[in-house]
Amino acid sequence: MHCYLLTIGDEILIGQITDTNSAWMSRELNACGIRVVGKSSVGDTAIAIREGIAYAAQHADIVLMTGGLGPTKDDITKKTLAQLFNSDMELHEPTLERIKGYFQRINRPLPHSMYDQATLPVKATILTNKMGTAPGMWLEQGGKIYISLPGVPFEMEYLMTAEVMPRLVAQFQPRPIVHRTILTSREGESNIAKRIEMFEDTLPSHVKLAYLPGMGEVRLRLTGVWPGEIIPDAADVLTREMDQLQQQLTDLIPDLIYGYEQDSLPIVIGRLLSERSLTLATAESCTGGYIAHQITAVSGSSAYFEGSVITYSNDLKMSLLGVKMETLGTHGAVSEATVREMCSGARERLGTDFALAVTGIAGPNGGTPEKPVGTIWVGIAGPNGVATEKLTFSRDRLKNIHLTSVYALSFLRQILLTM
Amino acid sequence: MHCYLLTIGDEILIGQITDTNSAWMSRELNACGIRVVGKSSVGDTAIAIREGIAYAAQHADIVLMTGGLGPTKDDITKKTLAQLFNSDMELHEPTLERIKGYFQRINRPLPHSMYDQATLPVKATILTNKMGTAPGMWLEQGGKIYISLPGVPFEMEYLMTAEVMPRLVAQFQPRPIVHRTILTSREGESNIAKRIEMFEDTLPSHVKLAYLPGMGEVRLRLTGVWPGEIIPDAADVLTREMDQLQQQLTDLIPDLIYGYEQDSLPIVIGRLLSERSLTLATAESCTGGYIAHQITAVSGSSAYFEGSVITYSNDLKMSLLGVKMETLGTHGAVSEATVREMCSGARERLGTDFALAVTGIAGPNGGTPEKPVGTIWVGIAGPNGVATEKLTFSRDRLKNIHLTSVYALSFLRQILLTM
Repeated sequence: MHCYLLTIGDEILIGQITDTNSAWMSRELNACGIRVVGKSSVGDTAIAIREGIAYAAQHADIVLMTGGLGPTKDDITKKTLAQLFNSDMELHEPTLERIKGYFQRINRPLPHSMYDQATLPVKATILTNKMGTAPGMWLEQGGKIYISLPGVPFEMEYLMTAEVMPRLVAQFQPRPIVHRTILTSREGESNIAKRIEMFEDTLPSHVKLAYLPGMGEVRLRLTGVWPGEIIPDAADVLTREMDQLQQQLTDLIPDLIYGYEQDSLPIVIGRLLSERSLTLATAESCTGGYIAHQITAVSGSSAYFEGSVITYSNDLKMSLLGVKMETLGTHGAVSEATVREMCSGARERLGTDFALAVTGIAGPNGGTPEKPVGTIWVGIAGPNGVATEKLTFSRDRLKNIHLTSVYALSFLRQILLTM
Repeated sequence: MHCYLLTIGDEILIGQITDTNSAWMSRELNACGIRVVGKSSVGDTAIAIREGIAYAAQHADIVLMTGGLGPTKDDITKKTLAQLFNSDMELHEPTLERIKGYFQRINRPLPHSMYDQATLPVKATILTNKMGTAPGMWLEQGGKIYISLPGVPFEMEYLMTAEVMPRLVAQFQPRPIVHRTILTSREGESNIAKRIEMFEDTLPSHVKLAYLPGMGEVRLRLTGVWPGEIIPDAADVLTREMDQLQQQLTDLIPDLIYGYEQDSLPIVIGRLLSERSLTLATAESCTGGYIAHQITAVSGSSAYFEGSVITYSNDLKMSLLGVKMETLGTHGAVSEATVREMCSGARERLGTDFALAVTGIAGPNGGTPEKPVGTIWVGIAGPNGVATEKLTFSRDRLKNIHLTSVYALSFLRQILLTM
């Protein structure tokens, strides 16, 4: 089954936004055995949209469009679709009700443009967008499927996951397909590849392994597609085979794997803390609250996370965490000695079982020959004392902040596992 | 002058990499008056590349390709180009010498595949790649230009800057284009559209307005293309016209606009604080450090940002910020009374001119009929006292955290402006 992606919007062609949607959608589609054969971007004109759709339909069974669905004048995708499918436009009452409910909840008057937003081609199946006002649309014509989704990433991701993928899988993928996602941190793609080379070389041909690299993390995805004739318990047989392969992979790199499927480091850490009835605090300098944000992005984190102290200045390192002036004077703010006092101070003053502290030079300025930009110290204070680790990253500020968070949480996980 | 971008490589279609090259190239081309009319991605097959080039050439004067130039077997762009242009392939000695020099410098033997890398279509003008092994190529046929560049971002950027852009600008006298990006927060696309309807309806036909919505923010982009014959000072005349239009727009919604072009709310706030020699701290409950992270993501923020206290638990609200037990008991943690004591306490204990505090129910659980999920209080303590604001958002945890950050920083900006 082939799919062609079409992104609509001048903002992509003038380079104002980077298209991250396409990569996300390609991964999801590929994981379900739907091949993306090409993608195009066109501007916000009827003629460009029309031509883009025609070209896409020549190359694939599914044309998946994003963008151009807002209520303002530059968004004309919907009208162009209605014309293309010879469909009248009508006010779609359920959509209007949903939008009205949203504006009621946020206590704002309903803008008149929302009537346009809820006016939709009658031939389209409406895909309910629980994350925004513009609904998705599903149209079929001449044996092909045309899907139109809003371009805002989290709205698109919601609609793909909740509406589009289940429909596509039901329509096109009768062959059982089983995925396993294995989450690793702290090693790059090529080093992981080296360690699991044998495993990869001996995978059966109906199972594929994909590396999905992120910052400081690599997700490994095993996709098995039932190879032969479909037997009644094909799905179960394939599931058992995938379980075994996942176990083999886990045995090869247990030190790198922190979780599976929808896990994340903060979720895994939350689980470890909850199971052991332990509490956590953080003390952050160079990460400026990013680690606390990662931890508190998890719903229910208030059960184990007490709070954090972000001490950007040396004064606050002393007054809020009790770091000694001599320590700062002798070793500097970015040092093992300082991070030790930061995590011990946080553990004591915030009254938690564990405290994670980081101090470093995020950059791009502020480095010295001895302590270049990207030098970071991590400390973890717990009931059994303090453990520290030095990290060395690059000159990119946001990358350093993100990588520090991944490595520090990874370090914390290892320590919690020994409790 | 019209350009079409073509990215070549299976890695884009399976979603293994996000295409950041296109946005970069689009910005560069636009800045020189060359309009990008579309872009496509095709896989690593001769037939897909051939068809992609033909389609691109139908739509533009310049076909700008990236990717598919590496030495490995799946990269066949170069051979396909040679066939398409009826050109022989020959070893290009200057390129081979350059590659040899590179391997000598890094003290490694020359891989045999580098002879392939230096074998190039004789009809192509070779663009010397000082950042990597694969050279760029420039071909002309039928009045159109075909340019092929490697896909590695810093190699592509080097070749665009040093070789491609100067040649394009010399060859064409492009029509001046001027962009203006106006940044707004706290209002949705449709409400902004209502307020600037007259402005939008009376825009001259050579100027377009686009809405680029983000979470809690909308960017407005005005694009003017010089309409008539090109006169010597066309660019200046157009720039003045765009300046006037930007001013007209600013006068219509001054309350919503926080900046222009590459600004962001944290950058604008940092500028306001620096200009006034003021310092800032935050005290966060439901946002869990996200606001501090936004502020400290700006390089140089240590000049005005002292730190933050994240008090997820009531205990820490009392011990670290001095919130009174009676206040928490009578009004609850999510209340105007509590946020007042939080920001005042932070200002005093962290010793800053301003302190921003937030407390709320991020969700998805924890709401009550009186205080549903998405209820947030923001407080700002400054030299002139405390200001507070109540926000009401949705049931989505991460959206609530993000929106709270945008609204709170917006509120802080307004207060700083009155100083």
